[in-house]
Amino acid sequence: MTSSEPLDVDPVFALHRRGKIEVSPTARVRDDVGLAMAYTPGVARVSQAIAADPLLAELYTWRANVVAVVSDGTAVLGLGDIGPLGALPVMEGKALLFKEFGGVDAVPIVLDTTDADEIVDTVARLAPSFGGINLEDISAPRCFDIEARLQERLDIPVFHDDQHGTAIVVLAALRNAARLTGRGLGDLRVVVSGAGAAGIAVTAILLEAGIGDIAVADSKGIVHSGREGLTEVKQRIAERTNRLGIVGPIEAAMVGADVFIGVSAGKVEEAVVSTMAEESFVFALANPDPEVDPEVAHRYARVVATGRSDYPNQINNVLAFPGIFKGALSVGATRITAGMKLAAAEALAAVVGDEVRADYVVPSVFDPRVAPDVAKAVAKCARRDGVSRRD
Amino acid sequence: MTSSEPLDVDPVFALHRRGKIEVSPTARVRDDVGLAMAYTPGVARVSQAIAADPLLAELYTWRANVVAVVSDGTAVLGLGDIGPLGALPVMEGKALLFKEFGGVDAVPIVLDTTDADEIVDTVARLAPSFGGINLEDISAPRCFDIEARLQERLDIPVFHDDQHGTAIVVLAALRNAARLTGRGLGDLRVVVSGAGAAGIAVTAILLEAGIGDIAVADSKGIVHSGREGLTEVKQRIAERTNRLGIVGPIEAAMVGADVFIGVSAGKVEEAVVSTMAEESFVFALANPDPEVDPEVAHRYARVVATGRSDYPNQINNVLAFPGIFKGALSVGATRITAGMKLAAAEALAAVVGDEVRADYVVPSVFDPRVAPDVAKAVAKCARRDGVSRRD
Repeated sequence: MTSSEPLDVDPVFALHRRGKIEVSPTARVRDDVGLAMAYTPGVARVSQAIAADPLLAELYTWRANVVAVVSDGTAVLGLGDIGPLGALPVMEGKALLFKEFGGVDAVPIVLDTTDADEIVDTVARLAPSFGGINLEDISAPRCFDIEARLQERLDIPVFHDDQHGTAIVVLAALRNAARLTGRGLGDLRVVVSGAGAAGIAVTAILLEAGIGDIAVADSKGIVHSGREGLTEVKQRIAERTNRLGIVGPIEAAMVGADVFIGVSAGKVEEAVVSTMAEESFVFALANPDPEVDPEVAHRYARVVATGRSDYPNQINNVLAFPGIFKGALSVGATRITAGMKLAAAEALAAVVGDEVRADYVVPSVFDPRVAPDVAKAVAKCARRDGVSRRD
Repeated sequence: MTSSEPLDVDPVFALHRRGKIEVSPTARVRDDVGLAMAYTPGVARVSQAIAADPLLAELYTWRANVVAVVSDGTAVLGLGDIGPLGALPVMEGKALLFKEFGGVDAVPIVLDTTDADEIVDTVARLAPSFGGINLEDISAPRCFDIEARLQERLDIPVFHDDQHGTAIVVLAALRNAARLTGRGLGDLRVVVSGAGAAGIAVTAILLEAGIGDIAVADSKGIVHSGREGLTEVKQRIAERTNRLGIVGPIEAAMVGADVFIGVSAGKVEEAVVSTMAEESFVFALANPDPEVDPEVAHRYARVVATGRSDYPNQINNVLAFPGIFKGALSVGATRITAGMKLAAAEALAAVVGDEVRADYVVPSVFDPRVAPDVAKAVAKCARRDGVSRRD
């Protein structure tokens, strides 16, 4: 065993010592009577009742409130493919946030495989243990396929947070920024820099929400139907975006754009930002180094958002996933529909409400209204969309 | 959703409502600083350190203290194959007992497959998430193969509790019963009724401990090499037991036997019990209906044990598994050796010590010395056997 003392000098390591979560009993077994109720022979009655009516598992086990946080360790934060053990502290952190912010129990499951078929099979087989599956830090484009195939096989929500969590918070921020400047989403032309998990999902939700137009750029420039070698996912994006038919590097799309959304870490120079429209919004979400320096962005943009907690308008997934799962689990949702994602973004935007300012387009992650409001909106939409198994 | 009120009249169902365990944070995120330490960006440093040195996962995640309680729901208590959802309350109960008695975190994982290959692959793939695997309520003979193959693939302990937990507690009780009557294990001739998971493991540990002789009987009578149609596991048992070469029904072996161990639910009549040797021991462990009525057993046997909490000498696995995993995890054991199982049984027997009586051959499950003493013995033996990864 490696000696740990030098690392523990770092308070982050000290905090992580022995992990960040534990399993706690909610029933007690203080004596033979308690043991006979919580375990054998009493538990046999509960097991028999569930075997006869599987829906009773929602009531008499922890399943209805527990989510698996699943990763294969291939796209961990900005670190890339660092493997399942390296991913574990992140998944534990996620589990901690699920409970602290949403009251949802969550279990980190890191996988010793990066094969998409094996990931799908493995997660599908352990799914009876959980009420939902939060996929995390799985690299693109595998993540799209894995999520879709799992959702098709399972009757519980499957949600890749790197995609949809980010997309939902971005949409909430954009709604408020648009409202602040008296525009509708249909008035806005957007440039998305990055066509990985987050970029694709941000694009999808903005289209769903009725955005004016979007140009998506990856490291090879703007995605358009004429470009060779597009993946299937990017081909679909090309068909639904870039109505102006802009080609070339991202700079070509930035001229006159109303919104820049960076989810790629690719730097954008001041000269390029200066070509954007008046009253523009710059969401530079790469962490820890935003695509546009926030000081620079402020010289040109009306609203600036980042992924960092030390600047205003932090686009943080923790604003979304705890409430989304809390809401979905509360009604036994079988999936998370596009409508539920939009409803989550609307509810999140509404927490800011009339207090909206250029430096306050999303609420603080510590605002206690966030998770309950998001959960309520998601649950309501699940019932409306007919994916709820209970009231 | 099925209405639940009628079921909740039963206090066992009321206790199970919403399950029996939860995930709790052990680190707090009260503000931006806390969030940046427990999650991004701080957690990236921990992830990077573990990616560079995987052993650090034992120190800076919960892995070193968390066990998966895995079942496919095929042999749940006495209920048989009731499926993964029916099994879930039992696995939750087990997780609760792991924490209450051993301080070990445990996560119930119930599987939507009963195929041995799929179970092995699934558990092997999720293994990086855990420090140990407790297999539970998986039917024989699949359970033997699944356990062996998983242990071969993984460098963490794999332990099928229905086998080894029962075997360890039986051996502890037998040691004390023998001591009470001034005999050694080598003096005893034993009849084991049942050749499923528990019967096979009890037989194996008694042979390991130097028992005099054993005859194993299943529903077709005594297992012997000449019997046709034996499974591979029973064939191996036949080769190592029944030195007297007894054939026929279990009654033939009971004549003059010193010990009866019932792990099958097959009833044994009073007339048969009456043929046993003087100062015999009857361990009738079927639950809730022992193979021999305890009142009847007391007419002939010196020591009577059951699986029930309302009689003395309860043979309960909870006397073993929390301490065994606590001990194995505390030294980062890569497996649970035969020696560690024997050491656990010895430590458990020693808790009773000189207070041994006919109605006190195993300690109470609520004796606070049990798990720590077992853990200490198991950890010591793991180091001796060279399967420990740390001190």
